[in-house]
Amino acid sequence: MLIVMDMHAGPVEVEAVCNEIRSLGLVPHPMPGAQRTAIGITGNKGSVEAARFESMRGVMRVIHVTAPYKLVSREFHEDNSIVKVGDVAIGGTGFVVMAGPCAVESAEQIDEVAHRVKLAGAHILRGGAFKPRTSPYSFQGMELAGLKILAGARKEHGLPIVTEAIDHESLDQVAEYADMVQIGARNMQNFSLLKLAGRCGRPVLLKRGMAATLDELLMAAEYIANEGNPNVVLCERGVRTFADHTRNTLDLSAVPFIQRTSHLPIIVDPSHGTGKRHKVAPLSCAAAAVGCDGLMVEVHPHPDSALSDGPQSVDPGQFDDLMKRVTAIIAVVGRSLNCSQ
Amino acid sequence: MLIVMDMHAGPVEVEAVCNEIRSLGLVPHPMPGAQRTAIGITGNKGSVEAARFESMRGVMRVIHVTAPYKLVSREFHEDNSIVKVGDVAIGGTGFVVMAGPCAVESAEQIDEVAHRVKLAGAHILRGGAFKPRTSPYSFQGMELAGLKILAGARKEHGLPIVTEAIDHESLDQVAEYADMVQIGARNMQNFSLLKLAGRCGRPVLLKRGMAATLDELLMAAEYIANEGNPNVVLCERGVRTFADHTRNTLDLSAVPFIQRTSHLPIIVDPSHGTGKRHKVAPLSCAAAAVGCDGLMVEVHPHPDSALSDGPQSVDPGQFDDLMKRVTAIIAVVGRSLNCSQ
Amino acid sequence: MLIVMDMHAGPVEVEAVCNEIRSLGLVPHPMPGAQRTAIGITGNKGSVEAARFESMRGVMRVIHVTAPYKLVSREFHEDNSIVKVGDVAIGGTGFVVMAGPCAVESAEQIDEVAHRVKLAGAHILRGGAFKPRTSPYSFQGMELAGLKILAGARKEHGLPIVTEAIDHESLDQVAEYADMVQIGARNMQNFSLLKLAGRCGRPVLLKRGMAATLDELLMAAEYIANEGNPNVVLCERGVRTFADHTRNTLDLSAVPFIQRTSHLPIIVDPSHGTGKRHKVAPLSCAAAAVGCDGLMVEVHPHPDSALSDGPQSVDPGQFDDLMKRVTAIIAVVGRSLNCSQ
Amino acid sequence: MLIVMDMHAGPVEVEAVCNEIRSLGLVPHPMPGAQRTAIGITGNKGSVEAARFESMRGVMRVIHVTAPYKLVSREFHEDNSIVKVGDVAIGGTGFVVMAGPCAVESAEQIDEVAHRVKLAGAHILRGGAFKPRTSPYSFQGMELAGLKILAGARKEHGLPIVTEAIDHESLDQVAEYADMVQIGARNMQNFSLLKLAGRCGRPVLLKRGMAATLDELLMAAEYIANEGNPNVVLCERGVRTFADHTRNTLDLSAVPFIQRTSHLPIIVDPSHGTGKRHKVAPLSCAAAAVGCDGLMVEVHPHPDSALSDGPQSVDPGQFDDLMKRVTAIIAVVGRSLNCSQ
Repeated sequence: MLIVMDMHAGPVEVEAVCNEIRSLGLVPHPMPGAQRTAIGITGNKGSVEAARFESMRGVMRVIHVTAPYKLVSREFHEDNSIVKVGDVAIGGTGFVVMAGPCAVESAEQIDEVAHRVKLAGAHILRGGAFKPRTSPYSFQGMELAGLKILAGARKEHGLPIVTEAIDHESLDQVAEYADMVQIGARNMQNFSLLKLAGRCGRPVLLKRGMAATLDELLMAAEYIANEGNPNVVLCERGVRTFADHTRNTLDLSAVPFIQRTSHLPIIVDPSHGTGKRHKVAPLSCAAAAVGCDGLMVEVHPHPDSALSDGPQSVDPGQFDDLMKRVTAIIAVVGRSLNCSQ
Repeated sequence: MLIVMDMHAGPVEVEAVCNEIRSLGLVPHPMPGAQRTAIGITGNKGSVEAARFESMRGVMRVIHVTAPYKLVSREFHEDNSIVKVGDVAIGGTGFVVMAGPCAVESAEQIDEVAHRVKLAGAHILRGGAFKPRTSPYSFQGMELAGLKILAGARKEHGLPIVTEAIDHESLDQVAEYADMVQIGARNMQNFSLLKLAGRCGRPVLLKRGMAATLDELLMAAEYIANEGNPNVVLCERGVRTFADHTRNTLDLSAVPFIQRTSHLPIIVDPSHGTGKRHKVAPLSCAAAAVGCDGLMVEVHPHPDSALSDGPQSVDPGQFDDLMKRVTAIIAVVGRSLNCSQ
Repeated sequence: MLIVMDMHAGPVEVEAVCNEIRSLGLVPHPMPGAQRTAIGITGNKGSVEAARFESMRGVMRVIHVTAPYKLVSREFHEDNSIVKVGDVAIGGTGFVVMAGPCAVESAEQIDEVAHRVKLAGAHILRGGAFKPRTSPYSFQGMELAGLKILAGARKEHGLPIVTEAIDHESLDQVAEYADMVQIGARNMQNFSLLKLAGRCGRPVLLKRGMAATLDELLMAAEYIANEGNPNVVLCERGVRTFADHTRNTLDLSAVPFIQRTSHLPIIVDPSHGTGKRHKVAPLSCAAAAVGCDGLMVEVHPHPDSALSDGPQSVDPGQFDDLMKRVTAIIAVVGRSLNCSQ
Repeated sequence: MLIVMDMHAGPVEVEAVCNEIRSLGLVPHPMPGAQRTAIGITGNKGSVEAARFESMRGVMRVIHVTAPYKLVSREFHEDNSIVKVGDVAIGGTGFVVMAGPCAVESAEQIDEVAHRVKLAGAHILRGGAFKPRTSPYSFQGMELAGLKILAGARKEHGLPIVTEAIDHESLDQVAEYADMVQIGARNMQNFSLLKLAGRCGRPVLLKRGMAATLDELLMAAEYIANEGNPNVVLCERGVRTFADHTRNTLDLSAVPFIQRTSHLPIIVDPSHGTGKRHKVAPLSCAAAAVGCDGLMVEVHPHPDSALSDGPQSVDPGQFDDLMKRVTAIIAVVGRSLNCSQ
């Protein structure tokens, strides 16, 4: 922490701040400058509350120097983490593709999609059984029946399953039936749910909140890791901005930032990111090129009659094309669809 | 719903869209214009899924005409709702003040604050027993012990209690001990929690999410009302923007918008909105002047040693001054601190 | 400036950074901590380019400590500045009101508005002769003819004139005919225009850009002051955010921030800030309560037939009401409409 | 335009709106629905001012149906536009690369960079002679001397030149010395400058403003085209959001949106978009993969001693690597570096 003094602060104010620092068992480092004095603090193990300094006489500003996450930080763990979902390794040289409909609607729908996305090269089947919907009058998902359909598709097609949990009850059920638990954007700071996800015994796919900074995303991952579950995969899915030509603004610069800052894998969801079918393929290619560890893509056999988020889903034929282009692009950045690690 | 056709769309494409509309039991109203045709839809009771039209040949854009909330809409309920918390009426001519510390830290702290804020004119005591914190390493609240302290202060000082619930377990406890359940900004779209809040038997204070539009805030309130609980008070507490001089950007224009659109009361929280103590009083005055139904203010007996959010808390002396200024301003807009109505 | 080293940086990397600092004639202050070393820099008069440090081995982050503005900073000039526009003093105990139509449309329109706003208590007449419009097909203003109409109204009604300049040519004309030159939000970082405004011999009303931080607003004011013109009044008029219920999000917290950071006066424009007539009066009251130095309000005799921005203009009767409420509120915060000081 | 009536509006209010529409020579299309009536308007050639309807009794909302640009719209011009800069064709199957330093600093610097970027495959040399800088105390560019250095480099290395104009004076000089005039993000809504750019006789590179919607970007291009200059290339360079890990948030979804909506070419600037050197190569690859028509990349022979924006510049060796990866990726999307078309 660094405390910046007002230009008009004199030796008395500086000494008072230094004394307060010493009273916490820490070491002050006053640096008198041409215009003002700044005071560095060392000796702290965790974070120091800024409040006790901000209101002291002569203090202009308090600056935090170190990020507050540890377990998920690359500084504390230099090598990439590899998260296994069934036999699929995420975070190695393989490029993982999770695909499937926004919502589970029937066994036939899931069977048809699972068949097609597996043929096209996808590794993991997605599909929502519990749907967080803005309106109470919208379809809220098939719940347990949906989980059973997904589990049936896993048996039939051999694809591991990822699906979203939205509360304690659904988390228990998802952990029982699925291979990976998804925490959605709206729950990224539902800290109770994060703690439970940290104890659920399954790898977790953690989506970035609509207005979350990357530090907050990493702190949310830290909640999960701090409960003993290091198997977290991050997911960029677009943030809310003033721009109105897409539902969200996909922030691909999150990928190189996370890769420098954390050892956790990061994938990209271009379907929620853009909200429009015709943007899914170009932004999937862009995500592959930026160097992320995989994609999550919404695929529906008949997008125009989907019960939720139809406009952002591609159909199986469009997904085939998308996979061909993505496969060629990941080859350029030294990856392949081989995730058997 | 209105469907806008491409300039190049001909009679065949227009007729196909009209047929699709008829197939849903609705009535199409084609309007041929100089450059393009638009097609209105009537006959729908609820909302129509835009997806099935957006991908039809010749369709340029689909525009939703009506907001999806009903129970909380002023169109369906013209008079202001008045929400009672204990004996305190929110939404009438009285101006309600909720005050207290960010977090309950001890019985002494709560006793001291309750005494002072009541003296200054506040109606409801606030204090967090369950704290949603960005970092897992920060103080997470006294939980049940904190609720008991609050309940004790109610008995001692005669102030109703509002405090936050963050999950199912804490909601049950809050509903037992407190007079009003707060749903925080991070949980505004935790739809499971909203449904439970709708069945908890207590009035609910619903805070706007950091990146929530006002339509989304009203839809969240609709979740609560739809479970049978009409006693919802909305709270503007600042939104996340690029601006970096405050923690959040307090959006006071939310107040006149909500007042035209909904019959629910709306209050303002200038403490979280600004994150800085010296801005709390000016923005409390601004909120009073804009015509909202009340304030929620963080007051701590010793802000600089607070366990959470100290920098945004005022001390009891500063709160006295704030109340004097606010009292004078609400008189100008025809209100008073008398909430016994 | 503070340089934060990576956890893994050793004495060699720290010494290399210290040497680079010394090579610039500055003094390094290394502070070894439990996890990492930070290095303070003193001895710099102006700002140091961060670039040369950011890419050095072992450097994690470079933090700027001091804001880059001087002339407009309260640290360098403790007392409030008072800017005179004709006989009207802005920034003292008086609360200034600038009012008039978005665009000058005719002599009759200006005469009618000037008469009414003066009666209601306004001090300065506003009206656009040069209009920056998003579309090339929209009305672009009466230009020189508009300036002459405004000058005529000043003579007739005794109100000083403020109007916008949008380029070099219009700035020369505005400086000749008007009492105060307005630089609009879209030109806040048109640095050529700012420099000319600094040499134009008139006080300047500088509006915050739609996506400008307050540091950038103050740097824009510094451009004007640096050319020798200290007579700058700042104006908050709303910023662009995700919120879609208003055209812009009025950021009233800018007022207390600017008042702590700068000695320049700051006023608020609630018309552009909200874009809706029914929000102008409530937000004018809020601005008055937050403690700003005045208002700029769009008033049109017949808003519904206005050539530009009609929906955000109030009519003279609504303005009368607004002024009554504002007058009562500024009394609470110790101000009056007397700006003759 | 569509006018949505309040639920409580009766036949009298609907008829009044219809009469107002007819009084403008337009045709009303009332559509009575289950809950409310909507009224479509046809017959308008240009846009209708919403103001005159918004305040009528019983009107809830006015919705604009058609975008206001024509010349730059794909609806009015189906084929891609190809813009020639010297012999370089932008917008065809070739992928154009503009590269060079942020600011011209010396003839030697430009000579060295021009040599290296040409070798690596770039088509156009960039370099700022007039620099819009946030602080008046920062280096403002070499101005005319810088333009002469660029012109010398064109002669020596055979690369066309693109450089920014910031006001009328610099625009005249840039149009004389350079092959393409750049309008920067801060001037995207400097409408006087746009009009002049429309008459300057040179192709224009128009950068998206920091808070500009894509409709506003296209309207700015319409200003240029409306003055008779159809040779406009758009540039996405990042927008301002709450995200703080990059200077701006690069919005790659702008590319597919613009390509559907307009016939103008669009390139991407990943240097300003991210503000950090290590993100330039990954985001260049992403931009190539998303399908844009080219890149603008900052390259400096010695980034760490650059006079402006060093941290976001790559050095020539890094640029060589970037070009190799980009070349491989554009092949996947069916493009090449051959822009001689």
